[in-house]
Amino acid sequence: MLTDDAEGLEKGVFTEPEIRLAMRNHGMPLEALRYDLTPPGLHYLLTHFDIPSVDLDAWTLGIDGLVERPLSLSMAHLQALPQEVRTVTMECAGNGRSALDQRPASQPWVLEAVGTSRWAGVPVSALLERAGVREGAIEVVFCSLDHGIDGGVEQHYERSLPLELARSAEPIVAISMNDDPLPPQHGFPARLLVPGWYGMTNVKWLSRITVVNTPFDGYQQAVAYRVRQTSDEQGEAITRMLPRALMVPPGIPDFASRDRTVVGPCTIDGRAWSGWGAIERVDLSTDGGERWQPATLDQRTSDGHAHWCSWSYRWEAPEPGEHVLMVRARDTAGNEQPDEPDWNAGGYLNNAVQRVVVTVRAS
Amino acid sequence: MLTDDAEGLEKGVFTEPEIRLAMRNHGMPLEALRYDLTPPGLHYLLTHFDIPSVDLDAWTLGIDGLVERPLSLSMAHLQALPQEVRTVTMECAGNGRSALDQRPASQPWVLEAVGTSRWAGVPVSALLERAGVREGAIEVVFCSLDHGIDGGVEQHYERSLPLELARSAEPIVAISMNDDPLPPQHGFPARLLVPGWYGMTNVKWLSRITVVNTPFDGYQQAVAYRVRQTSDEQGEAITRMLPRALMVPPGIPDFASRDRTVVGPCTIDGRAWSGWGAIERVDLSTDGGERWQPATLDQRTSDGHAHWCSWSYRWEAPEPGEHVLMVRARDTAGNEQPDEPDWNAGGYLNNAVQRVVVTVRAS
Repeated sequence: MLTDDAEGLEKGVFTEPEIRLAMRNHGMPLEALRYDLTPPGLHYLLTHFDIPSVDLDAWTLGIDGLVERPLSLSMAHLQALPQEVRTVTMECAGNGRSALDQRPASQPWVLEAVGTSRWAGVPVSALLERAGVREGAIEVVFCSLDHGIDGGVEQHYERSLPLELARSAEPIVAISMNDDPLPPQHGFPARLLVPGWYGMTNVKWLSRITVVNTPFDGYQQAVAYRVRQTSDEQGEAITRMLPRALMVPPGIPDFASRDRTVVGPCTIDGRAWSGWGAIERVDLSTDGGERWQPATLDQRTSDGHAHWCSWSYRWEAPEPGEHVLMVRARDTAGNEQPDEPDWNAGGYLNNAVQRVVVTVRAS
Repeated sequence: MLTDDAEGLEKGVFTEPEIRLAMRNHGMPLEALRYDLTPPGLHYLLTHFDIPSVDLDAWTLGIDGLVERPLSLSMAHLQALPQEVRTVTMECAGNGRSALDQRPASQPWVLEAVGTSRWAGVPVSALLERAGVREGAIEVVFCSLDHGIDGGVEQHYERSLPLELARSAEPIVAISMNDDPLPPQHGFPARLLVPGWYGMTNVKWLSRITVVNTPFDGYQQAVAYRVRQTSDEQGEAITRMLPRALMVPPGIPDFASRDRTVVGPCTIDGRAWSGWGAIERVDLSTDGGERWQPATLDQRTSDGHAHWCSWSYRWEAPEPGEHVLMVRARDTAGNEQPDEPDWNAGGYLNNAVQRVVVTVRAS
């Protein structure tokens, strides 16, 4: 997604390349946290290069490399195989990047790079079983039709999964989103979907699945999407989503500043998710982090790590004046959101708590 | 949409409020110019305040003010009336704002604030006829459920049309977009649609239509969306879309810079539109504006001002090296795109020609 040996951009000041990316890609306006399933067009979107134009009649999904029986599957083939459904919350690994000082010239997400959809398709495990994985295989590479240049390297967007994960129950090759064919911008006609992992995993516009016996060192695996302090470190691969809670900013906004005005008692609600486990608790502060109170989790939605759960908090007696609302999630694996970002060169994994400044008006 | 007595932001440097707006709203990636109808989720989107949550069972559209028979119409009522279809290209009046020096803190559009959809609904004229417009009426005010603060004024988003235009054949109250109910972000359950006019006209989340006998002086009519040099001028109201041609940037992009690389001869294609008449000609320059050549217009699509027409240009022998591509449209009303923006305080109506820098690589 980005070169992380960028020059390092100053906090609070944004550049033309960031604006060009910002106008193409988009987040989910936070009031859309109200929907269990994000309506089409509101799910966050990041396109690495250009949205490819795919002729479905000519398109096939190849399965090759270290397999007994290389396959070339048309959409009719895929549709004829047993389908499974996954309701998945997906977040970009760069969500929160715009709050960072010395960040790379990349998509300047504030907090909106998230969405939840119902995806359906064929389990990757079933495709690998049909092709027959051969001895010695260790990874599976997913290749996209998305084509361009990143960090000086001309490439199709490609990412790999460890063979064990690719063969596990959860990953699917999705061919529908919220019961419709994939929209062009979300990977038509087929994309990878790995519940719980950050967005870069879920390769769109799939053209080929290749089983390999060496670690995949493509640009998006070995250079981009790694957590490191300097560009000459190898760094850590980015995998599952860290916990995050987001609130629907209460009250009404100012158009230009997005500052909020609230009148009287109100219910603050939102969603929380983690790729590492279920959400164990969500706490809210209405005084800038001095005191924290537990929010009420909707138990019906907090039973797994594949999609977000709902929470709410009743703010009974807001005093007139300015307040800083903050919300923090903790998952069952013991991960908790930090108050401040942990910096890294690529501007990834900033799951520091959301802060919303509201002015309470006497009613 | 914005206060135009803002401090005036420097060209090429963007601020946090602009980034917050940019992450909520979004443009249409220019490769989507390939679609006659913009697929859902790719049409540009600007929400003034927050996307309202509308309970369709409780919602009605009121028609009141200077009428014989005030009406309160449910969705079932609207659906039972004769429907008409409009295929409309819609553009934000602020498209191109990010290129301006001394611009207000508002949505920093580059060039992507456009889209074309097929809308269907009930002609405004039919609704006014049912209600019976009374003597003395001069304007019709369209009120939205979208609620917030702009320029210090708490408001529902509201705009008016002159009575003559409201009663003319073209405006509709749209209840479907590309044959589906309106998505939440495009005005569910009903919005105004005035073919040929800039986006701010097409009030989303309609709640009320009020016939009045004095000029409407609401914020979005009298303060925002006016062309002026200083904030104390009254300025000119913004109405119909000026002509603009946009090309699909050819070749492949660099992720972070969006710079383009082209190999060998290629066809450059795109769309052009104007709210003032049909597109008469589109010219293209491949040398930064020294020489211009006519593009080929698709006559099937260039027959009116309601939606964009297609054009293409065959670039036969690009020389290796860097080239600046430019494209310029002219309409039958004699309007032509300028090379440089005409500045105004609100950052509106910048229809200066698109420039795309490409590097041609020897094949």
